[in-house]
Amino acid sequence: MTTAKRDTYTPETLLSVAVRVFNERGYDGTSMEHLSKAAGISKSSIYHHVAGKEELLRRAVSRALDGLFGILDEPGAVRGRAVERVEYVTRRTVEVLIAELPYVTLLLRVRGNTTTERWAMERRREFDHRVAELLKAAVADGDLRADVDIRLATRLLFGMVNSLVEWYRPHPDGDAERAQVADTVVHLAFDGLRTAL
Amino acid sequence: MTTAKRDTYTPETLLSVAVRVFNERGYDGTSMEHLSKAAGISKSSIYHHVAGKEELLRRAVSRALDGLFGILDEPGAVRGRAVERVEYVTRRTVEVLIAELPYVTLLLRVRGNTTTERWAMERRREFDHRVAELLKAAVADGDLRADVDIRLATRLLFGMVNSLVEWYRPHPDGDAERAQVADTVVHLAFDGLRTAL
Repeated sequence: MTTAKRDTYTPETLLSVAVRVFNERGYDGTSMEHLSKAAGISKSSIYHHVAGKEELLRRAVSRALDGLFGILDEPGAVRGRAVERVEYVTRRTVEVLIAELPYVTLLLRVRGNTTTERWAMERRREFDHRVAELLKAAVADGDLRADVDIRLATRLLFGMVNSLVEWYRPHPDGDAERAQVADTVVHLAFDGLRTAL
Repeated sequence: MTTAKRDTYTPETLLSVAVRVFNERGYDGTSMEHLSKAAGISKSSIYHHVAGKEELLRRAVSRALDGLFGILDEPGAVRGRAVERVEYVTRRTVEVLIAELPYVTLLLRVRGNTTTERWAMERRREFDHRVAELLKAAVADGDLRADVDIRLATRLLFGMVNSLVEWYRPHPDGDAERAQVADTVVHLAFDGLRTAL
């Protein structure tokens, strides 16, 4: 861990340091002391910005959740056949995950007993549920296979997408790579790897 | 964590307790004291069976790795077209993962600096590489899409399969469920969720 010294701290820069430390040490394993050292500012300076580490967690996971839920209001997610909407949401989920990688990583790793952690887990389940509903609608339209258990397929789809936080590291040519990863996820999940018969 | 009291301990029962504790606390966070308490036997009794916790780790990840590499020698993995072989290996990987869930969970979570951890990570990469080679052969045969980056597809396929250790909990009717999960993974990855056009 490197220690950054800054003259001025904004809530935004403090948040990005906090997210990095939470991801490195785990939320439970992070103390205000760790945050203070990593940010290179005193604990009282941190308390000037936020009430404590739980507020930093709430802000960080909110950023991830706002990104994800925002997708569901985009035109591509609300217009057209369910199968097109669910493909759109899958593609955008990959893009948001990569664009907000440290924030979504934190969201996916949250387990625990604080109100904020439980709230984050609940909101995350709600997002998964919304996608599962779209998948179900696409099955009802006859566009997705009816012989696959949708609950299981949803879990596997998110298992694949969420695995990105474990192994994906952004490249310098970010945008092109991001689009390629999103395309590959959609191809794999919806069309499969096999060539058409 | 429950504390099990036993009159006699075999290396096998000690191993299953150790794997549970490693998965709960992390390998680094587990001391011989923790293992002694969880097993309900003294540390000197544990040392009667094994040289230390690293030996327990080696035995545990070996069990997972033997299960996985064993697949590659099965008739379904060595005979027939590459695409059939890679589907077979994918299906069997899911089955072995579920059958050896705590051991594979430990294998997938290993990160670290001991010789055993590095060896486990290296062997795991070797397994992924063998599967990637099969995928490449199936693309060369024209049976899998050539417009998908195979390295990326391999990562996503394992991301999906390996996510099972995070959310899958075995059911009482284990065999049927295990086969259904394996089928769904293969359908999703190779045929896709879309109905045929």
